[in-house]
Amino acid sequence: MLARDMARVTLLGAGMMGSALAVPLADRGHEVRLVGTHLDAEIIDSLKRTETHPKLGCELPREIRPYFVEELGEAILGAEILGVGVSSAGVRWAGEKLAPFVRPEVPIVMVTKGLELEEGRLVLLTDLLDRSFAEPMHPAAIAGPCIAGELARRVESCVLLAGRDRNKVERLAGELRAPYYHPFVSDDAIGALACAALKNAYAMGIAFALGLHEKRGGQPGSVAMHNTESAVFAQAVLEMQRIVEAMGGDPLTVSGLAGVGDLDVTTNGGRTGRFGRWLGLGLPVAEAIERMAGATLECLEILEVMRRALPGLGIGAAELPLLSHLCEVALDGAPVALPLSRFFR
Amino acid sequence: MLARDMARVTLLGAGMMGSALAVPLADRGHEVRLVGTHLDAEIIDSLKRTETHPKLGCELPREIRPYFVEELGEAILGAEILGVGVSSAGVRWAGEKLAPFVRPEVPIVMVTKGLELEEGRLVLLTDLLDRSFAEPMHPAAIAGPCIAGELARRVESCVLLAGRDRNKVERLAGELRAPYYHPFVSDDAIGALACAALKNAYAMGIAFALGLHEKRGGQPGSVAMHNTESAVFAQAVLEMQRIVEAMGGDPLTVSGLAGVGDLDVTTNGGRTGRFGRWLGLGLPVAEAIERMAGATLECLEILEVMRRALPGLGIGAAELPLLSHLCEVALDGAPVALPLSRFFR
Repeated sequence: MLARDMARVTLLGAGMMGSALAVPLADRGHEVRLVGTHLDAEIIDSLKRTETHPKLGCELPREIRPYFVEELGEAILGAEILGVGVSSAGVRWAGEKLAPFVRPEVPIVMVTKGLELEEGRLVLLTDLLDRSFAEPMHPAAIAGPCIAGELARRVESCVLLAGRDRNKVERLAGELRAPYYHPFVSDDAIGALACAALKNAYAMGIAFALGLHEKRGGQPGSVAMHNTESAVFAQAVLEMQRIVEAMGGDPLTVSGLAGVGDLDVTTNGGRTGRFGRWLGLGLPVAEAIERMAGATLECLEILEVMRRALPGLGIGAAELPLLSHLCEVALDGAPVALPLSRFFR
Repeated sequence: MLARDMARVTLLGAGMMGSALAVPLADRGHEVRLVGTHLDAEIIDSLKRTETHPKLGCELPREIRPYFVEELGEAILGAEILGVGVSSAGVRWAGEKLAPFVRPEVPIVMVTKGLELEEGRLVLLTDLLDRSFAEPMHPAAIAGPCIAGELARRVESCVLLAGRDRNKVERLAGELRAPYYHPFVSDDAIGALACAALKNAYAMGIAFALGLHEKRGGQPGSVAMHNTESAVFAQAVLEMQRIVEAMGGDPLTVSGLAGVGDLDVTTNGGRTGRFGRWLGLGLPVAEAIERMAGATLECLEILEVMRRALPGLGIGAAELPLLSHLCEVALDGAPVALPLSRFFR
């Protein structure tokens, strides 16, 4: 028997974000079972032997119990909350694995981010997951500024918890809250998930100016090309508002945690910024990718998706001059030449 | 006789921003006269002798003609555009000096930023300047992400040009535009000027987390306290939206260049960030001020103004938990303890 305010939580996916989420859950007193996918075998092995998460580079609380994917049946027994932290490519697989265990009274929370394209239309990963189940479970998603390595080290973080079922979202927020982890709730799953995906592409573009500055021989400092970076930042917010609105979401979500908050943290703390800097420096895309040493580049994935989705959204390229340029640079190999005079129309 | 698309421009105030604005104007082909105030005598002297602006740390184009304040009469003769770049304390003085020369067909552009308090009500500096004149001239103001030292070095910059007379603003935008300087127009003088003032206070708060991180022995890097910084960034945007709306401005201005754009650049490039970092590190306010070596701290000025203005705006402290905390820390000497759980209500 668990105490009244404790729950059994089973998280599927032991990558950086899924594992980081286990930390506030464990600190909160929940019984947390962290199940690796086939890709996470080394991580689970390391956790079982040393409690150290090799990708996060730190120990996890010993209360978090690691499981190999083959042990899923045992790990999911009696789960009162389910979490999904697989890669975006693994969402269908996760749905199949979880389907036998989902029940309406067991809320599902996703940290997997991205948008999928289906017959020219954008689909939220929460909706994609939901299709695996016999009846809609309305999974909630976490968006907002949260670098996994910081959450695992208990850095004070605010996130947006969004889903189509307000009651489930509210209940989940209560279960996730920890002294340093502050989930705020939203009904706008579309806006939250669109921002979570799009911010990667736009953060790449904000970092172009850093590379351009260095290319001209500039040194880092307070006088650099911050004016250009911040103009791109503001244009990114404007374009994300347009896209979210066209998708049927709430443009106000873009000026909050999921939009400006996540865009800011991705620019300051993420690998996407390093990649954008290489492109700004003038490196060919292939070489920039090579220098990222195998890191997942969500920015390229979402640009591919958006390029094909835009016709169906009814937004012309002229309304998204920054996104269009990002596609030209990162997908077509065009040189960086930020079209500032076409911004803010 | 000047060419058809050239104008005689007289700028009053040769500080960093006023002088930086002279650069795109001169590059554009305008005849620019830069007049120092009493406080700028050394700057003008240096410009006359060596063309070097001591505060910007670079040469200005030789086409910009420097004048001492005593030479104002000569400098302003035949001016077709007037610019005001004095300190916020000098706006009334500038109004008196310019009053004999203003004419409806001569647009006025201000780079001076701030909000004044008059009998408990906030007043825009453009409106304050306008009162010096026999009839309303509707000066326009420049807001948005523009570090003077970068503009003077011709870094690509986007700014918002806002004023109460759309025609004048449009005309001015046309006169100011240069290949690397992109003014976009707005009717929302309230939103633009409120953002220009408020961003200093909020940028200070965003920088707290950098100091907190260092205080705990953390090193700069991708895993730091970026999550906290970006949560504060998003909350700053929310509170600026509330304040702008209460002042009668357009909250959408806050998600654009004047709001998120300027907040971003101030956080990355400004002295305000350094000051906030000292406070986050736990330095007493007086010591933090001392370490800033005489730099103007607009963040303290605007916090004083806002604390006294809030009752008149009808916004309770609970709606602005971040601003309230910034006042407690910077004005009352309270320790930094960001109230994240009270954000996003």
